[in-house]
Amino acid sequence: MPFQPNQDDVKAINTIRTLALDTVNKANSGHPGAPMGMAPAAHVLFSRFFQCNPQDPKWVNRDRFVLSNGHACALQYTLLHLLGYKVSIDDLKQFRQLDSITPGHPELGVTEGVEVTTGPLGQGFANAVGLAIAQAHLGATFNKDNFSLFDNYTYMFTGDGCLMEGVASEAASLAGHLQLGNLIAVYDDNQISIDGSTSIAFTEDVGKRFEAYDWQVLTVEDGNDDLEGIYKAIEAARAEKNKPTLIRLKTVIGFGSRDQGTHGVHGNPLKADDTVEIKKKFGFNPEEFFVVPDETKKIYADVAKRGAEAEKKWQQAFDEYKAKYADEAADIERRIAGKLPQGWEKALPEFKPTDDAVASRKLSEVLLAKLSTVIPELVSGSADLTPSNLTRWKNAVDFQPKANGLGDYTGRYIRYGVREHGMGAIANGIAAYGANLMIPAIGTFLNFVSYAAGAVRLSALSHQRVIWVATHDSIGLGEDGPTHQPVETVAHFRALPNCNVWRPADGNETSAAYYMALTSTHTPSILALTRQNLPQLEGSSIEKANKGGYTLVEVDGKPDVTFVATGSEVAIAVEAAELLSKQGVKARVASLPCWEVFRAQDSQYKLSVLPDGAPIVSVEAYTTMGWAEFSHAHCGIDTFGASAPAKQVYAKFGLTGEAVAKRAEKAISYFRDLGHPVYSPLSHQLAL
Amino acid sequence: MPFQPNQDDVKAINTIRTLALDTVNKANSGHPGAPMGMAPAAHVLFSRFFQCNPQDPKWVNRDRFVLSNGHACALQYTLLHLLGYKVSIDDLKQFRQLDSITPGHPELGVTEGVEVTTGPLGQGFANAVGLAIAQAHLGATFNKDNFSLFDNYTYMFTGDGCLMEGVASEAASLAGHLQLGNLIAVYDDNQISIDGSTSIAFTEDVGKRFEAYDWQVLTVEDGNDDLEGIYKAIEAARAEKNKPTLIRLKTVIGFGSRDQGTHGVHGNPLKADDTVEIKKKFGFNPEEFFVVPDETKKIYADVAKRGAEAEKKWQQAFDEYKAKYADEAADIERRIAGKLPQGWEKALPEFKPTDDAVASRKLSEVLLAKLSTVIPELVSGSADLTPSNLTRWKNAVDFQPKANGLGDYTGRYIRYGVREHGMGAIANGIAAYGANLMIPAIGTFLNFVSYAAGAVRLSALSHQRVIWVATHDSIGLGEDGPTHQPVETVAHFRALPNCNVWRPADGNETSAAYYMALTSTHTPSILALTRQNLPQLEGSSIEKANKGGYTLVEVDGKPDVTFVATGSEVAIAVEAAELLSKQGVKARVASLPCWEVFRAQDSQYKLSVLPDGAPIVSVEAYTTMGWAEFSHAHCGIDTFGASAPAKQVYAKFGLTGEAVAKRAEKAISYFRDLGHPVYSPLSHQLAL
Repeated sequence: MPFQPNQDDVKAINTIRTLALDTVNKANSGHPGAPMGMAPAAHVLFSRFFQCNPQDPKWVNRDRFVLSNGHACALQYTLLHLLGYKVSIDDLKQFRQLDSITPGHPELGVTEGVEVTTGPLGQGFANAVGLAIAQAHLGATFNKDNFSLFDNYTYMFTGDGCLMEGVASEAASLAGHLQLGNLIAVYDDNQISIDGSTSIAFTEDVGKRFEAYDWQVLTVEDGNDDLEGIYKAIEAARAEKNKPTLIRLKTVIGFGSRDQGTHGVHGNPLKADDTVEIKKKFGFNPEEFFVVPDETKKIYADVAKRGAEAEKKWQQAFDEYKAKYADEAADIERRIAGKLPQGWEKALPEFKPTDDAVASRKLSEVLLAKLSTVIPELVSGSADLTPSNLTRWKNAVDFQPKANGLGDYTGRYIRYGVREHGMGAIANGIAAYGANLMIPAIGTFLNFVSYAAGAVRLSALSHQRVIWVATHDSIGLGEDGPTHQPVETVAHFRALPNCNVWRPADGNETSAAYYMALTSTHTPSILALTRQNLPQLEGSSIEKANKGGYTLVEVDGKPDVTFVATGSEVAIAVEAAELLSKQGVKARVASLPCWEVFRAQDSQYKLSVLPDGAPIVSVEAYTTMGWAEFSHAHCGIDTFGASAPAKQVYAKFGLTGEAVAKRAEKAISYFRDLGHPVYSPLSHQLAL
Repeated sequence: MPFQPNQDDVKAINTIRTLALDTVNKANSGHPGAPMGMAPAAHVLFSRFFQCNPQDPKWVNRDRFVLSNGHACALQYTLLHLLGYKVSIDDLKQFRQLDSITPGHPELGVTEGVEVTTGPLGQGFANAVGLAIAQAHLGATFNKDNFSLFDNYTYMFTGDGCLMEGVASEAASLAGHLQLGNLIAVYDDNQISIDGSTSIAFTEDVGKRFEAYDWQVLTVEDGNDDLEGIYKAIEAARAEKNKPTLIRLKTVIGFGSRDQGTHGVHGNPLKADDTVEIKKKFGFNPEEFFVVPDETKKIYADVAKRGAEAEKKWQQAFDEYKAKYADEAADIERRIAGKLPQGWEKALPEFKPTDDAVASRKLSEVLLAKLSTVIPELVSGSADLTPSNLTRWKNAVDFQPKANGLGDYTGRYIRYGVREHGMGAIANGIAAYGANLMIPAIGTFLNFVSYAAGAVRLSALSHQRVIWVATHDSIGLGEDGPTHQPVETVAHFRALPNCNVWRPADGNETSAAYYMALTSTHTPSILALTRQNLPQLEGSSIEKANKGGYTLVEVDGKPDVTFVATGSEVAIAVEAAELLSKQGVKARVASLPCWEVFRAQDSQYKLSVLPDGAPIVSVEAYTTMGWAEFSHAHCGIDTFGASAPAKQVYAKFGLTGEAVAKRAEKAISYFRDLGHPVYSPLSHQLAL
């Protein structure tokens, strides 16, 4: 259909601008510039193309919208209001206020219609790549002749800030490689960032760079007024099926303000008199606020109607599909319901102490292979460390464009390249496609999860089930040395709210880690896994480990000391306990594979694992920061590691059964000499 | 001079290959592929161009070499040996062994001649940009007509892995903008990464991308044999004064091995029979190991001689310079000696309790302005948050290419763009130029230091004085909300060895933070600074705060409770103490601006600040992870923050004088009821 912008469109655009302006002014805080500049593109996109049903915000085949420049969220909230999502004028008036649904940056789970959490620059860009991957995969997996159940587009708005960020570069390069024709980015090329003109730091040829990534690059020279140009660009982007598209939209930031085109309009409310003039210029009464003209209401009511009809048609198609493809339909319904397949957990292997010693990365490989057969939504991948992370099951199909002959979009193994941050943020996008549609597991060395810290943080804040397969988890990796040996990484992510860090000690604990990671639907998990072999421990079980911490070795009568350890150091603690027992010293051993899950147990249980009455000594091959919560003395490494064969590095840092036993003896005699009762550190903290 | 490669060159190249091979084989661990592939480029570069004096590895105007693909370090160690650095054949035989000077990846400070720590991919690339910035700045600052004291090149080897990393993309974009003609990157385009062919994930047009960044891009089609082509490319790169150059060198990984050109030769020693065949092919006796033919020795002896002569000439020039430009020469000598200017510390302002309440970011602005006038090597900058970080002093000149009219290379303010990770890694490179030549201070929001975690880690491991000006350090930033409010960040960097995290509570503590950051020559510092105003505290002083922790408020007689707090929460603890005092409860207050520095004090001092005898309650607007080391009860936020005006967010999380006082009352009564002595958590830990 030809596009005919009319006066109602112009009015709608100015409505978006003034609504965003009123929203920011009312809060006396926020970013008016980008919403005012991007209002035309937003209006053309949403009024003419965007498919969504505000009455059913989770309709699976809706188009996805990502505001990667999340500081412009007054724009997004305004649009959500106009479209009829549960964002009222009162909500707009509560912008950036305590416990409102219109926080300072868009947050998944807080505002209906917000697909991902954005604001930290570059993240939304990569999330959108993940959302596009999810559509491509689900379409390839479930669509049939005449049934295009998954065919939505992912639209993303982005700005200079995002495009300077490495995480967006990584994701863009991969998106081009993957030929994601369903991904359309609108780049707000307003030449302004916080420091001023982009000429001071960002003079690269962005269009050429994206062409180098194999994107289609289109330019709209006048993004403020050329509505037809915007329309045609989006149309051309939708028509290009084998490349993502970047629409370079030249706009004026704060369009309409007397300070338009400067960074003065970026991050602060506009002055009162400027606001008055803007409203007059746009034909609005400056003494009225939060005004939506009827014509604008009508346009957006029609969009909502269009979306509701589209969903209705989709539902009809799905009903027919169901009749023809019962299994597939049942799988889709199960995934939409957010349920794992019945009985999937039977795939988790259990181990006996007589079983072979195995590296936990290898245990993870076995698990992924088993789980891949029973959980079809599990999609694995690695940042170019597949043979080290062991994330790929035999006969896995790579997720690749058919054209390159290396796999196809039904593939469940993603080759992320050496792009850890991009991978983490893309995984957030994959998970954001919704419910159990896809569950991403992503691999790298534990040390390099830190490269993706910005993305992990948003997994946690957004309550997304992303599973990091983080191998080579300590000095136990040996020769690669301190540049690759994490010592602080686990502490970092333990300090992050809503993030489960697992450090399994053997096969049963590895099964537990996967069980908990998969069933913690609103929490990311980092599975820290060894390169080196671990013995199967006497006393471990999936059930016990599911509690995050448990008593592995109990003693008869009053214990003299309790060891508490994680992962590869549990066996060292057990060895120390055995050495002590030969001297008549009674040593308990607790395994604490996941602090976060252990903390969630009741006090009585926790104190049964780490009881009063005897000193507690921790053993973990990391910096000891954080251990005072659980133990009196800490065996660890409060420096960087060393490059050498693993056993020698362990010995260098006093992480041997013998050295740990000596440390325990010291603790025992110190507390004996003190002559006072010994309290578990937990004991005081739980009471306070 | 025309280049005439001869048989000795070929022999030298094969010597490098076989030495690297023997090195990896002896360790039975390491990466033979890239050294074998890059040996020709390495030989041409070092034999014909590279200027260094192995007898004086720190000669300030030496060319810098960065091996960004640090896993190829067998190549670098081999070259250092041949050049005559303190890397013996025995050291090569100790590759990847405990406490050797040839660890698994190159480490600054461990091996003479290694300029930066590499291995974590992409870091070296950005370090090289920093080294090039340093040269450009020092040249512009100190060179005079006929005196080109600073004119070295920075050469960097890099691989596919680095070029996929966002940190390298960020740095490359900035390097192009800055027109760094002194930077020459040799890209080992061997089409192989760990997962296999780059065709599976990295199919972008790298050359075009770098052209988009405004680099000169040259290609050597046969990097294995075309020595003349390599020579000419380096020559052309040196001739281009206004652009950095990427030389795309097409090579075969593991050249000479029967598995050459596959990922099989990337990260594991080659098979014994393969090694035999390779040596034969290259004309070496397979039964001899670590062999350096005389012809090769001679070539590299000549290189060393050339370098020694160059330094001698430089020294003569410097002596003349000294006569003509005494002040500049004295400044250069002081910087090379690693000394701050005499009396610089007098610039640190002191504050009285009657002085105005000021945000610590604002205090930092005042400090930077004062320090900039007395410490000329201090170079500031921000990742596009200058007006928020307040990192730019009035009248600062931007570090920019003269051609763009926005500054020049004498400028001491760097506009990094929205590139936090790149900024952190570039700052490492700037610091790596050596001694006090330049001291980088870099700004972003505290929350986004996490984006640069990979670079911060290497600052710490490499013992580099990089100063992060990390503003907006908590929920106190208010409306921007949880996406921007750090809660875990400080714990993360506290867990990192050799990284000082400062959270000053007022003006005196901010002065102390800068004093310690500038004088901690081998440690990076993160200064966490507030957006909101902080009162000047009664009892604070620079001297006390320099200890990392001190008693701010003492009581007469036996205290009932001790508060311990940091930064903006110290004033809240003081308020709580005052509230309690009205009820006759004696509350001490300790301020702990820097845990790392406090930990380094003697036990007696530490226990005087956090003594036995009364419960200790911490107050900090972060997750409480780690506080059990110092306190019994912790007032903090074990979840994400909230978007609202700052005071409301503080109230929501119970961080008010009143709420904190109540928490203290609870702790007091708990311990009273217990009826046992109360030990400072430090007390046990120090004894154990």
